[in-house]
Amino acid sequence: MGRSAIYPGSFDPVTYGHIDLIKRAAHAFDDVVVAVAESTHKNTLFNTQERVEMVKEVAGDIGNVRVESFDGLVIDYARAKKINVLIRGLRMISDFEYELQMALTNRRLDGNIETVFLMPSEGYSFLSSKLIKEVALLDADITSFVPDSVAKRLREKLGTKK
Amino acid sequence: MGRSAIYPGSFDPVTYGHIDLIKRAAHAFDDVVVAVAESTHKNTLFNTQERVEMVKEVAGDIGNVRVESFDGLVIDYARAKKINVLIRGLRMISDFEYELQMALTNRRLDGNIETVFLMPSEGYSFLSSKLIKEVALLDADITSFVPDSVAKRLREKLGTKK
Amino acid sequence: MGRSAIYPGSFDPVTYGHIDLIKRAAHAFDDVVVAVAESTHKNTLFNTQERVEMVKEVAGDIGNVRVESFDGLVIDYARAKKINVLIRGLRMISDFEYELQMALTNRRLDGNIETVFLMPSEGYSFLSSKLIKEVALLDADITSFVPDSVAKRLREKLGTKK
Amino acid sequence: MGRSAIYPGSFDPVTYGHIDLIKRAAHAFDDVVVAVAESTHKNTLFNTQERVEMVKEVAGDIGNVRVESFDGLVIDYARAKKINVLIRGLRMISDFEYELQMALTNRRLDGNIETVFLMPSEGYSFLSSKLIKEVALLDADITSFVPDSVAKRLREKLGTKK
Amino acid sequence: MGRSAIYPGSFDPVTYGHIDLIKRAAHAFDDVVVAVAESTHKNTLFNTQERVEMVKEVAGDIGNVRVESFDGLVIDYARAKKINVLIRGLRMISDFEYELQMALTNRRLDGNIETVFLMPSEGYSFLSSKLIKEVALLDADITSFVPDSVAKRLREKLGTKK
Amino acid sequence: MGRSAIYPGSFDPVTYGHIDLIKRAAHAFDDVVVAVAESTHKNTLFNTQERVEMVKEVAGDIGNVRVESFDGLVIDYARAKKINVLIRGLRMISDFEYELQMALTNRRLDGNIETVFLMPSEGYSFLSSKLIKEVALLDADITSFVPDSVAKRLREKLGTKK
Repeated sequence: MGRSAIYPGSFDPVTYGHIDLIKRAAHAFDDVVVAVAESTHKNTLFNTQERVEMVKEVAGDIGNVRVESFDGLVIDYARAKKINVLIRGLRMISDFEYELQMALTNRRLDGNIETVFLMPSEGYSFLSSKLIKEVALLDADITSFVPDSVAKRLREKLGTKK
Repeated sequence: MGRSAIYPGSFDPVTYGHIDLIKRAAHAFDDVVVAVAESTHKNTLFNTQERVEMVKEVAGDIGNVRVESFDGLVIDYARAKKINVLIRGLRMISDFEYELQMALTNRRLDGNIETVFLMPSEGYSFLSSKLIKEVALLDADITSFVPDSVAKRLREKLGTKK
Repeated sequence: MGRSAIYPGSFDPVTYGHIDLIKRAAHAFDDVVVAVAESTHKNTLFNTQERVEMVKEVAGDIGNVRVESFDGLVIDYARAKKINVLIRGLRMISDFEYELQMALTNRRLDGNIETVFLMPSEGYSFLSSKLIKEVALLDADITSFVPDSVAKRLREKLGTKK
Repeated sequence: MGRSAIYPGSFDPVTYGHIDLIKRAAHAFDDVVVAVAESTHKNTLFNTQERVEMVKEVAGDIGNVRVESFDGLVIDYARAKKINVLIRGLRMISDFEYELQMALTNRRLDGNIETVFLMPSEGYSFLSSKLIKEVALLDADITSFVPDSVAKRLREKLGTKK
Repeated sequence: MGRSAIYPGSFDPVTYGHIDLIKRAAHAFDDVVVAVAESTHKNTLFNTQERVEMVKEVAGDIGNVRVESFDGLVIDYARAKKINVLIRGLRMISDFEYELQMALTNRRLDGNIETVFLMPSEGYSFLSSKLIKEVALLDADITSFVPDSVAKRLREKLGTKK
Repeated sequence: MGRSAIYPGSFDPVTYGHIDLIKRAAHAFDDVVVAVAESTHKNTLFNTQERVEMVKEVAGDIGNVRVESFDGLVIDYARAKKINVLIRGLRMISDFEYELQMALTNRRLDGNIETVFLMPSEGYSFLSSKLIKEVALLDADITSFVPDSVAKRLREKLGTKK
């Protein structure tokens, strides 16, 4: 019997930072489900299907990783899949606080599900999907932040050149 | 002569964390006015009257606590009521910074009014009205975050089941 | 040959905190360009021309300071002007993190351009254009936060009295 | 009946930051006891009597302020004096965390005693007794950090000139 | 095949916060080794054997938990035991930074070993062995911070009453 | 006329993080003096001469960089050299606070001297001389943290193998 873990997020779009974390999770656990959130309080640039496709394109070939989407509360999704570990990345301080707050809220909602935090590589500690979208909109070359397939989709979506 | 203090906020809606803080304020000061802000730069889910009613329902029976609403700057309101102490809760780091910034701005606007900070119980240190609204929208059971009367109003307002 | 530096920002509107930083930059470098960002992901209250005018009114008389506006990425602007130093202010923790993130993103986009951080005077460490706009909207007297010429424009723009 | 509060600390030595806070406390409460801790896990430069004398010299003339010393736990001291409010200053983030931790520990030891936090003036937000002793040892002019009577004692104690 | 993890620390002494974390680790992983560090740059109050005994007394009866001690680098110890996951608790911000720094240092020393972070229960988020020793020295009742067996050893070691 | 800057520190010992910062300073300013502090409130492992030698060995060949030592306050040293810019690195949050506090203290001591902050490369953001000494003492391979010449000296000083 192996240990499964869920790595939930909006992945709008998936970055090298996310990919780094998926690999670390796949190294620390036997089975990892990357779970793309359908319903999010933030408006997403890409729809759920696009976000799932992008994650699959860049992380689908890691043996013990599956990519899915889910609707509603992540703890309801975890319960339905009988997985009791959630994975989250810790980038910076403000991140840490929001993540802590979310994790404590989830714990209060279901005390059986534990959130574990992994650190991305330092080289990716500053990456955020939000900031990438902002600079992409200003025609920045984003190929050191996201894989080529994602950069191409971003350019198409935003109508930018680089 | 007793010491009065004002606890201002948007209370959209009031949570167990707010209630904990109201009780602590009522313990540390002789007279506490919970002051619901009418004009706020954030759009509120509940209108002023609803927010006042909810606070009254859950904290109205504490002897030395009154619930009111106010419009405009909190320091103008404090001045009008001849109360020179404002109370604010400190939950987490980011909170601390915004609170500090707001308190220093208020102090610059009226040097006679002092902001004092109280700590909520650890069990409520992660609660935020914003997060509660987010998870309520996803049909989470929020009865460990807010009193039943508030939970009922939230369900009605959001059209959710739990 | 002197050392030039660019101090980019949205300056919506310029505050005493910005002015303090401009003076410090003008003291530490031989030539300082205050660069008002035209395209910003935040909606600005004042348009680019107004924001440039306000900065010129309050800092235009410092000998080694010029005021300009720019469109697009700040690193592209810096490259075009052949200036390899960007200046940013550090006010508080959350500031620090966003600034760090932005600076690392810019460094990844152009490794030749260095961001240096200066500290505002403590008396201005809590000032933010956002907070000033919020309290101005509530009719606060903002003359200790911004110069008179800026206060006047804010009152006109917001239709407030003080 | 008035509201009393205890402001405990090591005051080794008292700084302009402490004095600012004592004045704010005396403004927000009817009666303030500045309580100098005899037993502290840090080695103090000045002994208890000297630290009490210095506080008395610089704050003894504020009407509703008394200066005392105490041994052991501050909550035992507060209980003995029948005062249920402790005052602490909030300078910076790391401060905030240690203060929060101490306050939560005290609350666990006696749930009846509430810690309230006050903000020093921005001009004193960076002052620390530890840093002042460090720079005084290097012959710095410390007269903008501590009152003259304290500066004189520091010079005598450290054998420095300024 | 199960997933093993090492929870290293000085445990000087073990607190309810550590016990909470051990239980969470035992829930998230199949096999947990609590590893008491012999050589530490801090002077410990209790020697290695005492620290191991205390952890065994309070956590030895959890089925999938073993208690051991180790000397030298934790990554060398982990490598020798063929376990590639280290567990650490996240209490507060300053904690987070030190932990992050340590984890990145360990990662640089052995890229194969991953550090995962767990959150203690909010009720224990402020507990630290250091603070407990400080207040125990002042005769505080520490039975809400550590189990009775640990409190007894602390009293004996420090020569205090409660 | 060029712009000079002083980069003060204890460099006990110099790390790849310091070297990265020296290069960035040398890129942003015309002339950089690395100033090794003789008198420091921390006990150093290496004496002043050794620390100066190590910095010279690893950064002495950068054209516009000189290495010196100084005694007393850095602002007195800066004044004597007629240089009005101090450079400091920003690694993490706690760093930021101490640095801010030190910079504000220095500014109060001499308002003419400005501290500017530079960011090290992310890959070095977690490096600290203190942590390196700790792991070196436990026989860790430190060659990815410090240059070979420094690693050799550390092994000799500490009597360790790697």
